[in-house]
Amino acid sequence: MNKSQQQQLLNAIHTVPDYPVKGIMFRDVTSILEDAQAFSLTISLLAEAYKNKGFTKVVGTEARGFLFGAPLALALEIGFIPVRKPGKLPRDTYAQAYKLEYGEDVLEIHQDALNSADKVLIIDDLLATGGTIEATTKLIRRLGAQVQDAGFVISLPDLGGEKRLAELNITPYSLIQYQGE
Amino acid sequence: MNKSQQQQLLNAIHTVPDYPVKGIMFRDVTSILEDAQAFSLTISLLAEAYKNKGFTKVVGTEARGFLFGAPLALALEIGFIPVRKPGKLPRDTYAQAYKLEYGEDVLEIHQDALNSADKVLIIDDLLATGGTIEATTKLIRRLGAQVQDAGFVISLPDLGGEKRLAELNITPYSLIQYQGE
Repeated sequence: MNKSQQQQLLNAIHTVPDYPVKGIMFRDVTSILEDAQAFSLTISLLAEAYKNKGFTKVVGTEARGFLFGAPLALALEIGFIPVRKPGKLPRDTYAQAYKLEYGEDVLEIHQDALNSADKVLIIDDLLATGGTIEATTKLIRRLGAQVQDAGFVISLPDLGGEKRLAELNITPYSLIQYQGE
Repeated sequence: MNKSQQQQLLNAIHTVPDYPVKGIMFRDVTSILEDAQAFSLTISLLAEAYKNKGFTKVVGTEARGFLFGAPLALALEIGFIPVRKPGKLPRDTYAQAYKLEYGEDVLEIHQDALNSADKVLIIDDLLATGGTIEATTKLIRRLGAQVQDAGFVISLPDLGGEKRLAELNITPYSLIQYQGE
């Protein structure tokens, strides 16, 4: 990614102050999607990073992971596997709970979505604490598939996601990093 | 779409009997996404139908509408606007309630996402009763944008969605129709 591309992405990401709570500078990826050139650049840069690496599937989590994961799967000419909230996937699923700041949530994957022949790339919009990516990694490995890579549009390194993913042997890559968040 | 393309899509759509309740034959679009060729064909056929028609934005509803709407927006080289469940969009929103079989639900759109210069294409995975598409149409028109077209991977004509959309002056188009559902 060159400086001009990076600036184009930075310009396309709106920051919403005090959302969802006071003091948080929310990085809004919907403003990338609205901008056809920025959206296309985002998918091209991720495709450039991950092409010709032998990936067989992209996995993305509901709902913002769908927005970047599905187009990237098309660009890489591989299938897309959705990880969803409970009760949304129609075939037999495995479930994985994960902790939120207050309480916990659950993600599910179709049991027949992946197998030991698969090498998986996880895609999400933003890496913060890494909780959903940890749960997603566990679901993928439970199906016997290989996963060592996760790509993001944005990461907030101060929130510890990179470290948490390193403990899972997942290498993160992000197009834009916001430090000091 | 030729017969061979239609057959390829039909083969890619798994049917899950008795989901979410007994007696329903659930048409599972996640099986299209898993199949890279079928997914690519789906987006190509929708792009073929809607290219060079002057659309300025694709609008898709959370969450399955994201899976087809975002890649189609990229293919058409226009922006994508997400319509989401309440509390998920960070900027100022308008909300629209709509009826479900039991109870009601609400969808939201960013107030600054569209304006009177926009000609919008709605994309969703499946047209059933048309309730979410009606709510989405109202949100788009509330922003002053033009909308007369909605594209789907699948439609279930017996559930009345086509008729409901006709009353809203929305012309639906679907790649696959399942009659007698």
